[in-house]
Amino acid sequence: MSIPTKYDWKKLEDFCSTVLENAGVSKENARIVATSLIEADLRGVDSHGVVRTAIYLERIERGMINPNATVTITSDSDSAVLVDGNNNFGSVVGTKALEIALEKAKRSGVALIGVKHSNHFGTGAYYAKKAIEKDIILLVLSNASQTMPPTGGVRPFIGTNPLAVGVPSGEQSPFILDMATSVVARGKIIVEAQKGNSIPIGWAIDKNGNPTTDAEAALDGSVLPLGGPKGYGISMFIDILAGVLTGAGFGKYVNNMYNNWEEPQNVGHIFLAIDINRFMPIEFFKARMDQYITEIKEEPKAPGVDEIYIPGEIETRRSEERKEKGIDLPLKVAQELDEIGKRYGVSLSEAALDINSIGEVQK
Amino acid sequence: MSIPTKYDWKKLEDFCSTVLENAGVSKENARIVATSLIEADLRGVDSHGVVRTAIYLERIERGMINPNATVTITSDSDSAVLVDGNNNFGSVVGTKALEIALEKAKRSGVALIGVKHSNHFGTGAYYAKKAIEKDIILLVLSNASQTMPPTGGVRPFIGTNPLAVGVPSGEQSPFILDMATSVVARGKIIVEAQKGNSIPIGWAIDKNGNPTTDAEAALDGSVLPLGGPKGYGISMFIDILAGVLTGAGFGKYVNNMYNNWEEPQNVGHIFLAIDINRFMPIEFFKARMDQYITEIKEEPKAPGVDEIYIPGEIETRRSEERKEKGIDLPLKVAQELDEIGKRYGVSLSEAALDINSIGEVQK
Repeated sequence: MSIPTKYDWKKLEDFCSTVLENAGVSKENARIVATSLIEADLRGVDSHGVVRTAIYLERIERGMINPNATVTITSDSDSAVLVDGNNNFGSVVGTKALEIALEKAKRSGVALIGVKHSNHFGTGAYYAKKAIEKDIILLVLSNASQTMPPTGGVRPFIGTNPLAVGVPSGEQSPFILDMATSVVARGKIIVEAQKGNSIPIGWAIDKNGNPTTDAEAALDGSVLPLGGPKGYGISMFIDILAGVLTGAGFGKYVNNMYNNWEEPQNVGHIFLAIDINRFMPIEFFKARMDQYITEIKEEPKAPGVDEIYIPGEIETRRSEERKEKGIDLPLKVAQELDEIGKRYGVSLSEAALDINSIGEVQK
Repeated sequence: MSIPTKYDWKKLEDFCSTVLENAGVSKENARIVATSLIEADLRGVDSHGVVRTAIYLERIERGMINPNATVTITSDSDSAVLVDGNNNFGSVVGTKALEIALEKAKRSGVALIGVKHSNHFGTGAYYAKKAIEKDIILLVLSNASQTMPPTGGVRPFIGTNPLAVGVPSGEQSPFILDMATSVVARGKIIVEAQKGNSIPIGWAIDKNGNPTTDAEAALDGSVLPLGGPKGYGISMFIDILAGVLTGAGFGKYVNNMYNNWEEPQNVGHIFLAIDINRFMPIEFFKARMDQYITEIKEEPKAPGVDEIYIPGEIETRRSEERKEKGIDLPLKVAQELDEIGKRYGVSLSEAALDINSIGEVQK
């Protein structure tokens, strides 16, 4: 039986949300997790989208995530707060931490929320976008399980600890930077290995710590930090704030979501929120952002370049397009979701897009 | 007449401080600027050390810096402060902003200080070290005049906007990350050009926006951001916080220290200070840092690597060594300082190290 691969984003979100509810997650939390996953698919960060439903479910089923734990505040002040996720979903914990960050920033100007006992929290852009809607500048950091060596090392020690930033603008696209601190995603190396291609020197080292252009050897080794010692330093700083300072895991004490079934991940996050109005009136700030972005976009372009983009601009456009024209899932992902749907009594096919109604995207 | 090239750090600091005083800088501010310069030389960041005395003096002499302006607070709250440097020296303005950041962080947990109307503020490590002494985690950002293109661009638009971080530890070396957001310092390309060497692809583009391995063509073009779009994004974010948010210049409105004699630089900075005690007792934090650093340093090493370092560790050791054994200045720099000394009635030779007293470093 063939399975549709093009889905309506809203219906696909409903599907994921209902599956999670049927797996024992509260209605509210199920919706948060589903929204976060779909947001990634909409923006084109498919690796962080509904493809993760399976592993999220497995972690609930095997007791590695407590989807209905209460997120608590461990220590509190006007601008510094420590939150304990109590091992709920990363996106549930992160959403709660974000709410606190936004509220505190509005009250005191700047707020930094540390989070411990959390899990993989999806894409940072999800939180950045929500902060932008409230006219807040947000910096989000998270640590992650070991994938990169320190400079001079041989094997993974730090994670590709991501950082994300959201800054509102006026007429122009908002500034949304969402990046791992590695040279490239490990997924890119997997793709090159599957194609039998070599990879550029500088992406990875083999298991003995030697630079390699062999994609297979790279997968047995480690992906390298962005820009060598600089990316190593930034990634380590993120681990220090999100892990060492919060009381979460750091280095080898952040457990792998896919391999470790002994204990929770104990991921840590940081949410830094800045109320723009404390520095200048928001409309004035937005006008300055528009000027800045306009001036960048009007710069002369390198050969072969059609347009200069700011961070997040391509993803924001893609999101609009996918809301209109649907989300394409790889057949394998659709099949997996279909299986999951059957297991939890939810029909995936109802989320499929009626392609007759969007004739313009047929090929 | 030959000029000594090895100097006692403290006497060299006194020399710079007295020169600045004689150029009209207050005793207090002269000392701050001199300390900041010497700190860079001690740590081995010679490009930001006493070599800058000449340009600093020229900017005073030509009215581009007001060395005795009062640094004022434009808007104030417990955790968000906007400071107006009123065009004093960057290190004077930065030192004042740092003081406010440390005091506010102790009071409210977290403080973010924005700074406008400043100048080049030296090395970020200078501020990071001072915060570490107070058991505060510091993140410092500054924008800078245009040197890097946006991704897809041809000519410089953003600065190599630096970031610096300081985190205290216990027995281990403190974590001090101090980096520009470019792939390499422009100075490295100058050195390769002088040697007639080529440079690796990815360091720079030529003036037409094409990747180049020709060091001369690179110098006519632009140095590239760290890791392509990622470094471009980080650098732009620093410009947004330090420039757009504070009311300082951003993009092309940050003036070049060496070329622009029409108007002040209008550099902007950000100082984010975090009181560790709000998250966990400082001794507990330091023990966690020591554990983290120890575990990294004990990692297996790549072929040819003797030791794994954390950010700032090499510079901290070098600083101790140079305090003991003296600071070596290139002859050209020593000659320039000697000239400056004569102009301002201060003898450079008195700062020279008596090499008979440190026989062990004679070659």
